[in-house]
Amino acid sequence: MAASKSIVESPQFEAFMKYGTYTVVKMLLMSPLTGIARGARGSFDYKEDYKGYSNLSRDEIKAKLDTKDGTIERIRRCHLNDVENIPPFILISFFYVLAANPTLESCHWHFRIFLAARIVHTLSHLLAIRAPTRSLAFLVGFLTTASMAWKTIRALKV
Amino acid sequence: MAASKSIVESPQFEAFMKYGTYTVVKMLLMSPLTGIARGARGSFDYKEDYKGYSNLSRDEIKAKLDTKDGTIERIRRCHLNDVENIPPFILISFFYVLAANPTLESCHWHFRIFLAARIVHTLSHLLAIRAPTRSLAFLVGFLTTASMAWKTIRALKV
Amino acid sequence: MAASKSIVESPQFEAFMKYGTYTVVKMLLMSPLTGIARGARGSFDYKEDYKGYSNLSRDEIKAKLDTKDGTIERIRRCHLNDVENIPPFILISFFYVLAANPTLESCHWHFRIFLAARIVHTLSHLLAIRAPTRSLAFLVGFLTTASMAWKTIRALKV
Repeated sequence: MAASKSIVESPQFEAFMKYGTYTVVKMLLMSPLTGIARGARGSFDYKEDYKGYSNLSRDEIKAKLDTKDGTIERIRRCHLNDVENIPPFILISFFYVLAANPTLESCHWHFRIFLAARIVHTLSHLLAIRAPTRSLAFLVGFLTTASMAWKTIRALKV
Repeated sequence: MAASKSIVESPQFEAFMKYGTYTVVKMLLMSPLTGIARGARGSFDYKEDYKGYSNLSRDEIKAKLDTKDGTIERIRRCHLNDVENIPPFILISFFYVLAANPTLESCHWHFRIFLAARIVHTLSHLLAIRAPTRSLAFLVGFLTTASMAWKTIRALKV
Repeated sequence: MAASKSIVESPQFEAFMKYGTYTVVKMLLMSPLTGIARGARGSFDYKEDYKGYSNLSRDEIKAKLDTKDGTIERIRRCHLNDVENIPPFILISFFYVLAANPTLESCHWHFRIFLAARIVHTLSHLLAIRAPTRSLAFLVGFLTTASMAWKTIRALKV
């Protein structure tokens, strides 16, 4: 009976789908965070977004458009770092589960370490925790993806 | 016979592939749009890109490199917003179709609303349509992805 | 026996997984490159990252934070271009292999040309090779993805 089961019904694939969803959700949460921070700090990218801010003069709005808010920039860079790393993690995880024939335990280790590393990365990035916390968290996530990529390439080369 | 069919042959998966392709194509179209706008406005990122603009002096090119063109920046931010939202939508749709056992109708609603929301988002972004059009279009797309993520997490937790 | 094989065991899907992994790895390599360049040029985004640079005064660090390093910006833009193009390529390749019923030869041509085009794009971008080398390399990769998208849409419309 096991042989008739499709690979997408394996516990490894299920773990992949679960952590894939979690990591995308983690990344998507950066958008409302940016929106909330923009509202709280009254800092937007475009003239049309200052519609509801009638207390600001034209000159004040122009000045705001010409300067970058440090907090917003921090959130945006953090979001961009997720964009650079989370979809690649999910794509590599997909190839890893399908091609490298990993144990469920091995999947769980890779997926959980990656998710934890990205959460630490975001917190240390947003809270400006002292270096090299953020870089180390980035490195752990990066090496987790690299480990799966390496195992996938080795499995596919055979 | 139905039981012997793979999940990737289901009408839900077919709808996923169709709307996945449409949304990626929508996002990819931002690249030629940027290229056309750069050519039309003679605004590039690098010195080497001004090769064919022999009517510009070195100082004029330097001045252009040091300032940002508002129209180009608008297109680039719009493209980045697609990058932040469209691949996550496709990954979540994939998990949703495989794990949440949705009806074809439910798939169609999610996929079509997302695609429509992203098109409205791009138009209101590029044409600077008055707030909060762009933000509302963003929100509709975001909530569509969130709805699928929520159903996937619930289905995988069982 | 062949009929009982899942589509993910086809040689086309295997080629997809191989080139999918290669292109993600190519993109991921931009991160350590940015890190190395930042270290070599002593140019970082945040105050907290200058911890180990005790030879710099507060004013020197502030000046560095307020200016952008041309080399770092070049690497970052190159990385962003990968982010805009490589995950879309992988998603479209996935749909193409599953829906468009391509020959193995057709898969190999698309995947290899795309990978080669992206490597040429990165080299010409980073080394500022004279225009239009970078734009042509971009265009070749872009058209490769567009060709697969076109064949997928046609196959799914039937």
